[in-house]
Amino acid sequence: MKSLLALSSVGVVLLAGLFAVACHAASEHTSKPASPIYGVTLPDGYRQWELIAPSLEGEPLNELRAVVGNPTAIQAYRTNTLPFPDGSILVKLAWKRTPSTEFEAATVPGAATTVQVMVKDAKKYATTGGWGFGRFVDGQPVDEAQHRTCFACHQARVKNHDYVFTRYAR
Amino acid sequence: MKSLLALSSVGVVLLAGLFAVACHAASEHTSKPASPIYGVTLPDGYRQWELIAPSLEGEPLNELRAVVGNPTAIQAYRTNTLPFPDGSILVKLAWKRTPSTEFEAATVPGAATTVQVMVKDAKKYATTGGWGFGRFVDGQPVDEAQHRTCFACHQARVKNHDYVFTRYAR
Repeated sequence: MKSLLALSSVGVVLLAGLFAVACHAASEHTSKPASPIYGVTLPDGYRQWELIAPSLEGEPLNELRAVVGNPTAIQAYRTNTLPFPDGSILVKLAWKRTPSTEFEAATVPGAATTVQVMVKDAKKYATTGGWGFGRFVDGQPVDEAQHRTCFACHQARVKNHDYVFTRYAR
Repeated sequence: MKSLLALSSVGVVLLAGLFAVACHAASEHTSKPASPIYGVTLPDGYRQWELIAPSLEGEPLNELRAVVGNPTAIQAYRTNTLPFPDGSILVKLAWKRTPSTEFEAATVPGAATTVQVMVKDAKKYATTGGWGFGRFVDGQPVDEAQHRTCFACHQARVKNHDYVFTRYAR
């Protein structure tokens, strides 16, 4: 009887422990949704980061875009450092391109579409050029299938620029 | 004789003073070219300022653009404050739109064209909605005739947004 009680106490402790881990994981998931495959999250304060360059994406997306970088990434751009050092983060903001109602010749940002993130960690992401990818819509990561397409395209097109398309607009 | 010497000493001091003022003015002019009419200069460090929004300018200019703001202007945008408070500065950077050689659907910044500045000072620029304007090419202000066109257009089109076209892209 005594040993049965002891055993059930162990069980309660184990269950409580599992419950705590599950809750922690759930709250992490709620506060910081992470991309499949890479586990990349939206970095805090990225909207305040320095502009690297704007761009325009044609048919079928028709988006105005702006790529911003954290201080590590910006420093690498300023000093023409390739590959980008670990800790570099690039974020691409995108909006539907919309005709300005106030100036005929101008096109301005409409609704936000995707926010896309690249995080450099040469060891963690060794099989994808040292980069982890995250594509988010309304703050939520898109599915795994979409994330499978990121590196193949960057690898095929901009391997000679450390897998990064965007150049600093001077 | 003694008073004559004293008088000439005063003269030398005055002349030296005038010379110093003239040199100072010349060096100010050399280091910070100012726009005609408004006396607006390119603010230090504006390339590091926060992005307000990208845009696209169609024919005949064909430019990709990005408007950035100093902290006073950004704070006004965040809090939907109109009119913008004194000290707000907006800077529009512009580049020729150029097809990406690495991704067919993308258009990226080419050569820089103009940098345009708006400075808010309700008293100093009372006759132009409280805004002073500066348009620069290669760091030099364009001519007075071009600067005469700024306010008329802003007044005709965006008077209801404190004469500012650009909205914050969220």
